[in-house]
Amino acid sequence: MRRTIYAGRTIKVHLDDDRWEVVERADAVAVLALDGGKVLGVRQTRPAIGGRTWELPAGLVDRGENLEQAALRELSEEADLTGELRRITAGYPSPGFCTELITLFEATSLSARPGTPDTLEDVTVEWREVDEVWTAITEGRELSSLTTLLGLAVARSRRAGG
Amino acid sequence: MRRTIYAGRTIKVHLDDDRWEVVERADAVAVLALDGGKVLGVRQTRPAIGGRTWELPAGLVDRGENLEQAALRELSEEADLTGELRRITAGYPSPGFCTELITLFEATSLSARPGTPDTLEDVTVEWREVDEVWTAITEGRELSSLTTLLGLAVARSRRAGG
Repeated sequence: MRRTIYAGRTIKVHLDDDRWEVVERADAVAVLALDGGKVLGVRQTRPAIGGRTWELPAGLVDRGENLEQAALRELSEEADLTGELRRITAGYPSPGFCTELITLFEATSLSARPGTPDTLEDVTVEWREVDEVWTAITEGRELSSLTTLLGLAVARSRRAGG
Repeated sequence: MRRTIYAGRTIKVHLDDDRWEVVERADAVAVLALDGGKVLGVRQTRPAIGGRTWELPAGLVDRGENLEQAALRELSEEADLTGELRRITAGYPSPGFCTELITLFEATSLSARPGTPDTLEDVTVEWREVDEVWTAITEGRELSSLTTLLGLAVARSRRAGG
């Protein structure tokens, strides 16, 4: 039996059979954009983890949006760009307790599309070399998301012909 | 100001400044084990997402364990194996709201080490071809975690010489 313990702004917390904690949250999207060996990312403050990260543009899917619309909105809001989308893959960040599914897209044929930034977000665009940023995250000099690491690994495997 | 709204068995939920929801959860580990083009995974039921997944062996770090101990325990509990560990990388599954950090290890020189399975887990070991399982997840025929996709992408990039 499911009891809802908390229903908040971005998450709900359920307790199943008085034991299993489940966090319900909207699904998310992320965008891999490559240009001549560089990858598009945004530097932003992430209070939940107490630090600044460098991540692929990403965000939650808003009510009424499909995945592609959400990906293009995030690309525009965070990097003032638009492009043609191709779905790469999708996975669960934490399937042990959270409903969230993240879909990773690639954006090509990039062009300018100024977006209205979420004024609550302190976001700086930074294009970086794929290998340099992989190494910086892996060595712990930068904080980042699993989705970002996945996008970088896909870029590395593709460049290598995989 | 932080208020703790829920303190449960595996998560705590905090509300910062009456607005920002933060889920506090233990860190986690996952293990990539490769053998001749095949990758070790476990099939298990994941009630939070309402389905069965195929995932790299993974789990939360228990109190008093370091990351390597947790990775070896999971490898033993879920696959009756042990090995030599090398850290691949680490990233946050959902840095927008959750404190959890996942560290991905590779295990080599595998040998038998029967573990005591968590009796609550219904886990079946399945070695699969790297490309076959990547495609199955990507095409939506299987559910899996971002960590699993990251491990598979790393295997693909390495095999390709990246």
